[in-house]
Amino acid sequence: MTAASEALSPARTPALERLTCVIPAGGVGSRLWPLSRANAPKFLLDLTGSGDSLLRATWDRLSPVTPAERVMVVTGNAHRASVTEQLPELLAQNLITESEPKDSSAAIGLAAAILETRDPDAIIGSFAADHVIRGDVLFQRAVSTAVQAADQGYIATIGIHPSHPATGFGYIACGSARGDLAPFDVYEVTEFVEKPDEATATDYLLRGSYLWNAGMFIAKATVLLDQMALAEPELVRSLREIADAWDTDRGAQVRERLWPALPKIAIDYTVAEPAAAAGKMVCVAAHFDWDDVGDFASVANLLTRGRSSDLAVLGDGAQVLSDASSGIVVSESDRLVALVGMEDVVVVDTADVLLVTSKSRAQDVKNLVNRMRLTGGGHLL
Amino acid sequence: MTAASEALSPARTPALERLTCVIPAGGVGSRLWPLSRANAPKFLLDLTGSGDSLLRATWDRLSPVTPAERVMVVTGNAHRASVTEQLPELLAQNLITESEPKDSSAAIGLAAAILETRDPDAIIGSFAADHVIRGDVLFQRAVSTAVQAADQGYIATIGIHPSHPATGFGYIACGSARGDLAPFDVYEVTEFVEKPDEATATDYLLRGSYLWNAGMFIAKATVLLDQMALAEPELVRSLREIADAWDTDRGAQVRERLWPALPKIAIDYTVAEPAAAAGKMVCVAAHFDWDDVGDFASVANLLTRGRSSDLAVLGDGAQVLSDASSGIVVSESDRLVALVGMEDVVVVDTADVLLVTSKSRAQDVKNLVNRMRLTGGGHLL
Repeated sequence: MTAASEALSPARTPALERLTCVIPAGGVGSRLWPLSRANAPKFLLDLTGSGDSLLRATWDRLSPVTPAERVMVVTGNAHRASVTEQLPELLAQNLITESEPKDSSAAIGLAAAILETRDPDAIIGSFAADHVIRGDVLFQRAVSTAVQAADQGYIATIGIHPSHPATGFGYIACGSARGDLAPFDVYEVTEFVEKPDEATATDYLLRGSYLWNAGMFIAKATVLLDQMALAEPELVRSLREIADAWDTDRGAQVRERLWPALPKIAIDYTVAEPAAAAGKMVCVAAHFDWDDVGDFASVANLLTRGRSSDLAVLGDGAQVLSDASSGIVVSESDRLVALVGMEDVVVVDTADVLLVTSKSRAQDVKNLVNRMRLTGGGHLL
Repeated sequence: MTAASEALSPARTPALERLTCVIPAGGVGSRLWPLSRANAPKFLLDLTGSGDSLLRATWDRLSPVTPAERVMVVTGNAHRASVTEQLPELLAQNLITESEPKDSSAAIGLAAAILETRDPDAIIGSFAADHVIRGDVLFQRAVSTAVQAADQGYIATIGIHPSHPATGFGYIACGSARGDLAPFDVYEVTEFVEKPDEATATDYLLRGSYLWNAGMFIAKATVLLDQMALAEPELVRSLREIADAWDTDRGAQVRERLWPALPKIAIDYTVAEPAAAAGKMVCVAAHFDWDDVGDFASVANLLTRGRSSDLAVLGDGAQVLSDASSGIVVSESDRLVALVGMEDVVVVDTADVLLVTSKSRAQDVKNLVNRMRLTGGGHLL
């Protein structure tokens, strides 16, 4: 009888073993220029002084969750060599390269579509290549919980309990606890909200039900794509067509034909927000330390663990002499960097560019980069 | 009768033709580190963007006053080659090199003693090698007036009418006009006063009788030395002994024997202050622009002509991209220097050292240099 039941209704593979983690490795991180460049994007940088690139650290964080054969990377053609150098364990079939960047819906959607062809029950988890997380066990537990919810047909995200009223992150508004999905830490998502102002961020912190949106999505590949298809049916049709041919001889040809016409749109708009509005989105509330290290002020805070009177130093051969100075020095040279009386300064010393700004103006580096793009400084970007 | 009178009392050479200008070229200018170094002292730098070193500019300023054969330079052995390269017109007999620095009394005193042996009526004018002056005609007129006073046996200095309540300069307190020496602009010197605080400097500016001390001294060589001998008889005896042998075969030998034992003392203490106290000092009040460009804030003010919201750039190949920044960038590289939101910043970009400070802390660069001297950074000084 037992044997017969098993034959009739074979035991499904446990959800965690159907999880494939996808690491979208795109984006230069122009607020981190001149450290980040077109050929040295943020995910290839070591911003923690650990010796590892953010991409490598992301891989290592996922290793206890899924074995190497279930980790995919989506990146630009230009970064193929760097990525495989960083991740020698990455299987060739799990490296998706884009001929041109098409934003996160296409990147994550193509990974989902490929997984769907390989296993109709596949679960996809998407984790950015260029964030910093401390607290791996808490991270693993959150992923595991999210996967259980995904297995029930929900699209799950992982939200981070805020440690301070950050104005640089989006937030997830959480509603009722979903004890039916997991004993604790799972909530319905009321809505996603954009970066708030200071007062709103403080209010969010006090209310406790607003979590940082770390851009992590976990869902069955089919559920994710079907949700995306409601917003962008053409896009999903193309992605599934590319995926169907992916593991065949026609793969490259189909992709080359369809990819250039795909719309550039963030997955927040095609999946996260509509799913939340439809009650199909849940959030796992997590307590690990997370940062998207979006600018040099973030890097400084990360390295000094928030002690703003400290001077952070990043760079193997960095030599710094400081008199009453705080902030951050990033050095790619062996020159001496001497600081006198500079508070909250940001100094980035590279072979061909020197940047000097302040932590409070670190976001505006992006404006300078945009200006250079328009005025012929592109070779330095 | 006329011919006989001439024979009996030969017409003295006009005073200006008995003037020899001495340029003491010493001092590293450590507040201008890392631009200034032991092997690139301040007087060899171009701090105005003119293409000329301060030493060369000093020479050119003196050319209309005295021909090349009446300009002497006193410098360290180490700078002999650099000085002769900068000043190809300098006669070998007018270059005095010091085996070790002995401060201004010995440097200017030796020049005076040598001049005295060559011409008992010689007049010496001492002008720093590393100051910036704009208004050459006003300068020439002031020197000419000072020489007339010197010819009457006075020690003359040239004081600069302050343009602002500077706290970084010493001042000359002027008393009664000395119409007997020149129709205008000559005053007795009541005293020399040290760098004042802000309130005192403002008071000086309002009173009008306090002039900036630019460290210029004009006197008969014999008068200068006799005055110095009252304070430092041993020093002057040694200087005259060195000078007596100077133009002979024994010159090097006598100097090597006596020079190391000479006291290090500024001419302010051996000549200027005692002469003022004794009523032997007069001041020519001048209106030319003068600056001792002692730190990077001064360099910035000089280059922007005081417009503090401007960003000054110094350096042949300097490439600067500024977003809402002011202060100064000094570049010895062809790297791009990018500034975002830095007010009153000082960035000095050299091959082996990068300095970042602010105009308000520019004076404190000296402290950093002193610290490096003690802690093994001497090779960068």
